[in-house]
Amino acid sequence: MITALDHIAIAVPDLEKSIKRFMEDFDLEFNGTEEVVTAKTSTAFFQVPATRIELVHPLNGEGPIAGYLEKKGAGLHHLCFRSDDIEADVERLKAKGYQFLSDAPSLGAHNSKVIFIHPRSCDGVLIELSQPGDDR
Amino acid sequence: MITALDHIAIAVPDLEKSIKRFMEDFDLEFNGTEEVVTAKTSTAFFQVPATRIELVHPLNGEGPIAGYLEKKGAGLHHLCFRSDDIEADVERLKAKGYQFLSDAPSLGAHNSKVIFIHPRSCDGVLIELSQPGDDR
Repeated sequence: MITALDHIAIAVPDLEKSIKRFMEDFDLEFNGTEEVVTAKTSTAFFQVPATRIELVHPLNGEGPIAGYLEKKGAGLHHLCFRSDDIEADVERLKAKGYQFLSDAPSLGAHNSKVIFIHPRSCDGVLIELSQPGDDR
Repeated sequence: MITALDHIAIAVPDLEKSIKRFMEDFDLEFNGTEEVVTAKTSTAFFQVPATRIELVHPLNGEGPIAGYLEKKGAGLHHLCFRSDDIEADVERLKAKGYQFLSDAPSLGAHNSKVIFIHPRSCDGVLIELSQPGDDR
C-alpha cells in the first residue's frame, strides 16, 4: 500500500545555485546531495515538515486556474510557503532579485495575505507566499 | 520569515474525480473542500505527513532530466509516493486503468524499486512509486 509522499521533485539546471536558494531564501533544512547513477541524476534533498496537497479547480469556470487549464492543461501548479511576516519576506526576497507577480500582497481567503513569485525567479516554479489571517 | 511549506497545488479539471483519486488510489487523508471566491477557485485539501523536496539535475549532462530541461525547462517535475509492496500497488492501480511508463518496477538507488505512472493517468502529474530497498 501507499505509505507516504516520499518527495516532491523539481528539475533544476544549476544544482548548487538551487541548493543555496532553498536553504537560504526559503529556509528549508538541507539533507545533502547524492548521485543516482541508475537514474543519471545528481540530487539534493530538503526535509519538509507536515504539509498539504491542494487541488485547485476554477470556480464557476472562471479565473486564473481556468486560464491555466486551457493553456497548459492539468498538472503541478505551485508551491506555497507560509510566512509570519509577508511584507518583510517580500522585501528580503526583492532585495535578492526575486520578481513578484504583483507589487504587494493581496487579501486571500480568511484574511490571509498572499503574493506570488514569478517562476522565472525560481527554477520555473511558481511560488506563493501566504501569511494566515488573524482568524486562522 | 518562512515557517512552513504550506501546500503543494495541483490544477485539476474535475475536482470530484481528483478528490476520489487522491483519497482512494493514493491513500491521502482528505480535509474537505472550500470555495475561495477571491481567487475564483474551488479547492480540496489533503493532509501530508513530513516529506522532502528533491532537486534533480542531470548527471554528467545526460539522462531523462537533461531531456526534460531542454524540452520543458526547469520546474516542478514529479511527486513520489512510497509503497511497502510496489508490485501489489502496480497491479491494483493497473486494474483501475492507470498507465505506467514501464511494464514493471526497475532498480533505483539503494536497491529501491521504482516505477512511473504516466501523467495522462493522473491530472497531468508524473507520479513515481518507490519501495525502499532492504538497506534503507
